[in-house]
Amino acid sequence: MQVYLDNSATTRCMERVTDKMIRVMREDYGNPSSLHTKGVEAEQYIKEAKEFFAKNLKVNEKEIYFTSGGTESNNMAIIGTALANQRAGKHLITSSVEHASVANTMKYLEEQGFTVTYLPVDTDGIVSVQDLKEALTDETIFVSIMYVNNEIGAVQPIDEIAKIIKEQNPKTLFHVDAIQAYGKYEIYPKKEKIDLLSISGHKIHGPKGSGVLYVNEKVKIRPIVFGGDQQKGLRSGTENVPGIAGIAEAAKACYENLNEKIEHLYTLKAHFIEGIQKLEGTRINGRTDRDSAPHIVSVSFRDVRSEVLLHALEEKGIYVSAGSACSSNKPAVSRTLKSIGVEKELLGSTLRFSFCFETTEEEIDYCLQKLRTLLPVLRRYVRR
Amino acid sequence: MQVYLDNSATTRCMERVTDKMIRVMREDYGNPSSLHTKGVEAEQYIKEAKEFFAKNLKVNEKEIYFTSGGTESNNMAIIGTALANQRAGKHLITSSVEHASVANTMKYLEEQGFTVTYLPVDTDGIVSVQDLKEALTDETIFVSIMYVNNEIGAVQPIDEIAKIIKEQNPKTLFHVDAIQAYGKYEIYPKKEKIDLLSISGHKIHGPKGSGVLYVNEKVKIRPIVFGGDQQKGLRSGTENVPGIAGIAEAAKACYENLNEKIEHLYTLKAHFIEGIQKLEGTRINGRTDRDSAPHIVSVSFRDVRSEVLLHALEEKGIYVSAGSACSSNKPAVSRTLKSIGVEKELLGSTLRFSFCFETTEEEIDYCLQKLRTLLPVLRRYVRR
Repeated sequence: MQVYLDNSATTRCMERVTDKMIRVMREDYGNPSSLHTKGVEAEQYIKEAKEFFAKNLKVNEKEIYFTSGGTESNNMAIIGTALANQRAGKHLITSSVEHASVANTMKYLEEQGFTVTYLPVDTDGIVSVQDLKEALTDETIFVSIMYVNNEIGAVQPIDEIAKIIKEQNPKTLFHVDAIQAYGKYEIYPKKEKIDLLSISGHKIHGPKGSGVLYVNEKVKIRPIVFGGDQQKGLRSGTENVPGIAGIAEAAKACYENLNEKIEHLYTLKAHFIEGIQKLEGTRINGRTDRDSAPHIVSVSFRDVRSEVLLHALEEKGIYVSAGSACSSNKPAVSRTLKSIGVEKELLGSTLRFSFCFETTEEEIDYCLQKLRTLLPVLRRYVRR
Repeated sequence: MQVYLDNSATTRCMERVTDKMIRVMREDYGNPSSLHTKGVEAEQYIKEAKEFFAKNLKVNEKEIYFTSGGTESNNMAIIGTALANQRAGKHLITSSVEHASVANTMKYLEEQGFTVTYLPVDTDGIVSVQDLKEALTDETIFVSIMYVNNEIGAVQPIDEIAKIIKEQNPKTLFHVDAIQAYGKYEIYPKKEKIDLLSISGHKIHGPKGSGVLYVNEKVKIRPIVFGGDQQKGLRSGTENVPGIAGIAEAAKACYENLNEKIEHLYTLKAHFIEGIQKLEGTRINGRTDRDSAPHIVSVSFRDVRSEVLLHALEEKGIYVSAGSACSSNKPAVSRTLKSIGVEKELLGSTLRFSFCFETTEEEIDYCLQKLRTLLPVLRRYVRR
């Protein structure tokens, strides 16, 4: 049995997505900048994708940009607005549990003379709005907070955060890395006072190398790459038409019968957590109820090294992550787990299980059953 | 009959490329940063692609980076090295006929305090090595010259340029935008003293959204996007595995029986040029022999607006470009045509015809025949 529980690292591309992409690559392969029909045909896919995202997010089509993925979306949002707005101030705020593509971009801006406040989180991984209130100054031009944490599934109080930011200074921009949230939550940036929003294709059964950035039309932003001025000059480079068609198709599929799918995920999650809690020496990191994301469960296993357990599960056909899998194989300590105060001995004993709409209860049971038999064996080995 | 002669704008994705990509997207969809088999399988595609490009370019695997396309490759090369080496000097050199992704990146660096020399070209679009010699100073840290011009197919004397640069100052870096050359020429950066080389996937029947940047291991370069430190930290973001597998497959196919294919293209080109020269009021821009690229012909048609002719040809099923098609629909005057001294009245009367390996003589004849009948009609219309 093959059980893929690493959907927060990446997902399988849906058949309807690849079908669409093949058509674009083989038939409608024109360059959208070409003036002839083949170009217009290609442009049509971009237009349709924009229309979909605009409708889905309840924003304007001209506020949708296509990127090469979540990392580029986050970089574009953060660097692009920081540099464009630095005259208004050089202070930025983010949290201590952001994805590397936010955290390391902030670090880069610090080198460029910006000051960054990293908000702490509580033991559930949630940013305190009080801390945010205290951090905001007249110099704060930009706040970046993720919607769903990629390691433990913590859901930030985005509405509240936005409200506080805008009350303090309506000009302070609010960016949300929604890479682990999009496709699971209905997100309406305008209503929620989000100025920029990042989305990734390969986390929602779309293609790798595809991403979206929503930018409110009022936002002052500069490009981070330069060239033929595609996408109104904000993101030069021939558009990845199959990728754009692919990410739109994937998003469309995700939002069909969303509630039903989310219900399914929460049922799986509750079932999985119940099973985990019956196992000796386990600890679930972060919240376990519906106030956490439906598809991510982080579990620490006392006296077992995460890599050892990961490979033992792999031998049984079960695929999971140690840490977030987005950090290029590096065995670095997880900032998120550290930030929520996971005790030192458990930092290297933690696995992330992440589900998708197609995950079944049978697969969860198989995983639990294997954990039940593997853990005592691995612990015996470690303890001797 | 459908005749696609806009291959320098973009190409049809090869079946063997899409076949490979589908397999990656549907079966081997893991995140290459994941530690389990699914991750390792995905990483294997990257490894194989690197091996191919390293062998094909006669460089080391660790000198190959994958990007989201030619524009990103050029930006990464230029911004990344300029910023990393600015202590050694702030002078850059390029030509006046570069692609927008080089020209506009240079413009950005000028805003950042760098000085850029734009070398003029002769009436064939060729950079004079004498001008280069005179432009090089001790402060010159970087020279960027394209291999093949995208609008007229001019081939720059890369070997000679490299020799002059390195004689003057071995530390001055030489970047070559090979986006229109790769797949048509055997390029060996180390032998040719090229330090950085940009390649695009969708110009060689590979996928849009894929590119390669060769960076000599001795080059000091910094990233332009930040995140999970994939690709040794130089290009963060989950690798676009299907795109990487796709561009490698396309490149592989291009270099199979290369000489035969190039012979075919030059035969087509000579045949096309012969036909064009028989038409009244036409002018071929740039060289017409084997010292120009095998797949690009730029033709000015006196007393016909390029857009009008483009759409008239389109109605006959023939697809070509006005200008370079890489500049997002904008009816801007071509820098290349201006630089080679095309008379003002012909600047807006120029089309680019670009072939691929699968273009046939029959298609060329069809195109010539349609031009023969269309031109007098369109001219009558213009002149009245």
